Amino acid sequence: MITSTSNAQIKELAKLQKKSRLRDERRIFLVEGPRMVEEIPKERIERLYISESFERKNPAYIRELGMPAEVLSDPVFSYVSDTKNPQGILAVVKRLEYTMEDVLGKSALKCEEKSGEKEKNPENHQIRVPHVIVLDNLQDPGNLGTIFRTAEAAGATGILLSSDSVDVYNPKVIRSTMGAVFRMPFFYVKDLPAAVKSLSSQGIRTYAAHLNGKNVYDEEDYTEGCAFLIGNEGNGLRDEVSECADCLIRIPMCGKAESLNAAVAAAVLMFEAGRQRRK
Amino acid sequence: MITSTSNAQIKELAKLQKKSRLRDERRIFLVEGPRMVEEIPKERIERLYISESFERKNPAYIRELGMPAEVLSDPVFSYVSDTKNPQGILAVVKRLEYTMEDVLGKSALKCEEKSGEKEKNPENHQIRVPHVIVLDNLQDPGNLGTIFRTAEAAGATGILLSSDSVDVYNPKVIRSTMGAVFRMPFFYVKDLPAAVKSLSSQGIRTYAAHLNGKNVYDEEDYTEGCAFLIGNEGNGLRDEVSECADCLIRIPMCGKAESLNAAVAAAVLMFEAGRQRRK
Repeated sequence: MITSTSNAQIKELAKLQKKSRLRDERRIFLVEGPRMVEEIPKERIERLYISESFERKNPAYIRELGMPAEVLSDPVFSYVSDTKNPQGILAVVKRLEYTMEDVLGKSALKCEEKSGEKEKNPENHQIRVPHVIVLDNLQDPGNLGTIFRTAEAAGATGILLSSDSVDVYNPKVIRSTMGAVFRMPFFYVKDLPAAVKSLSSQGIRTYAAHLNGKNVYDEEDYTEGCAFLIGNEGNGLRDEVSECADCLIRIPMCGKAESLNAAVAAAVLMFEAGRQRRK
Repeated sequence: MITSTSNAQIKELAKLQKKSRLRDERRIFLVEGPRMVEEIPKERIERLYISESFERKNPAYIRELGMPAEVLSDPVFSYVSDTKNPQGILAVVKRLEYTMEDVLGKSALKCEEKSGEKEKNPENHQIRVPHVIVLDNLQDPGNLGTIFRTAEAAGATGILLSSDSVDVYNPKVIRSTMGAVFRMPFFYVKDLPAAVKSLSSQGIRTYAAHLNGKNVYDEEDYTEGCAFLIGNEGNGLRDEVSECADCLIRIPMCGKAESLNAAVAAAVLMFEAGRQRRK
């Protein structure tokens, strides 16, 4: 058991917790809490830490996890934890480097993974037709996490983000994904307008969710490859991004509502695509 | 200008900010920030406070608001504000006491209000057919606010909440509604199962969003009066509530997703009802 914060491993862990640049360099991220740790594919866990009291209280959980874990005294665990009320388990997790092919659901790797799931869940049949969420300067960690969670459930193939969007590896994003971050391919691009044009040129129809959209979202056909463009929480899509879309679509709104929450707008569009693809 | 925190008005305001029971007794709630204050129907503003620097920086905003406001020195304003970075404007707002009739979109008051809006927005035509969201022990303020915002946009007539759900007048709920809290009828009930049965007996079909639902949500007909039951974030609907529903429905999910965020599930169902009612 490690009982001192001056232990070399603990010093390094504290640094990783504080410095996102260091996490980027090491190509890892940190995940806390028993529910989230359960969701991590085992081969991606680099190191696992538990607190002394977590070890005492959760022998069955630890046995089922079936992995060696370093035990830290409770004060040392608190020291390296990101949260006010640490849950007593923390994993250092390897990042996966996804490609654009992964985001489009085209890569062989994803194909195998998904076909395994297919047998368990017949509703997965549409998974190989590209169904992409494109996020332009999304800022709220809770929104991004919820979009990951919803995208997986709705059968989206992947998420494309402008490089000025919030970091997927932000702890609050990870928590709100409820595990989808370990399974949903994503890719950051510097030049989002060029990426949207490239989707179009590959036959994927790009739809910008826009308050000035003339076409109502549920009158379009999403059974072929499609991508939905969602903008920043306060300002919507940047003009240079929406101008590259094949079609501006609108979610009709009643009352005095001026806009929808970004995660809600994304959910409505993704589940409409899911609905059409099940028919 | 009030410059002392020992001023009687300031003392009372600070108490109102801290004590939800006092706000309940007085039948008021507090709203902060210029965007939210703009959304408040003028006749419901009881008192308005602005900070000295807000007054100096926003003469046009204050003129357009067209209401007298008490000016507080910046430190006094910070003292009564709920937020770390006060936005310099705070309103004391009268609560509206809604009835079940309001929630069902049946009251004369709502009827008049809505028919005014109808001319501006033809998509409001479905507003008079009951379309209710029923929330069982919802806990997250952000989720509740987002459900209000989404419900207004989707054309729901009102929101019914179990009395152990989060308080609508929680400042974080109010902020996340983006103003919908001033317009969307809502009603707390102690006995939610009885309320659900009562909806059924009035010919409003009640649908429980449930992981074990046999019917897929988009195969039901929501063009007549309907109500959607949404459960707690961690535990879903309580058995005694879902047992009272006319029908258990399921939102099909792909991948390993186990559930949806409560606000997302509500959004998918409400917009499916909206879609069907536009056809």
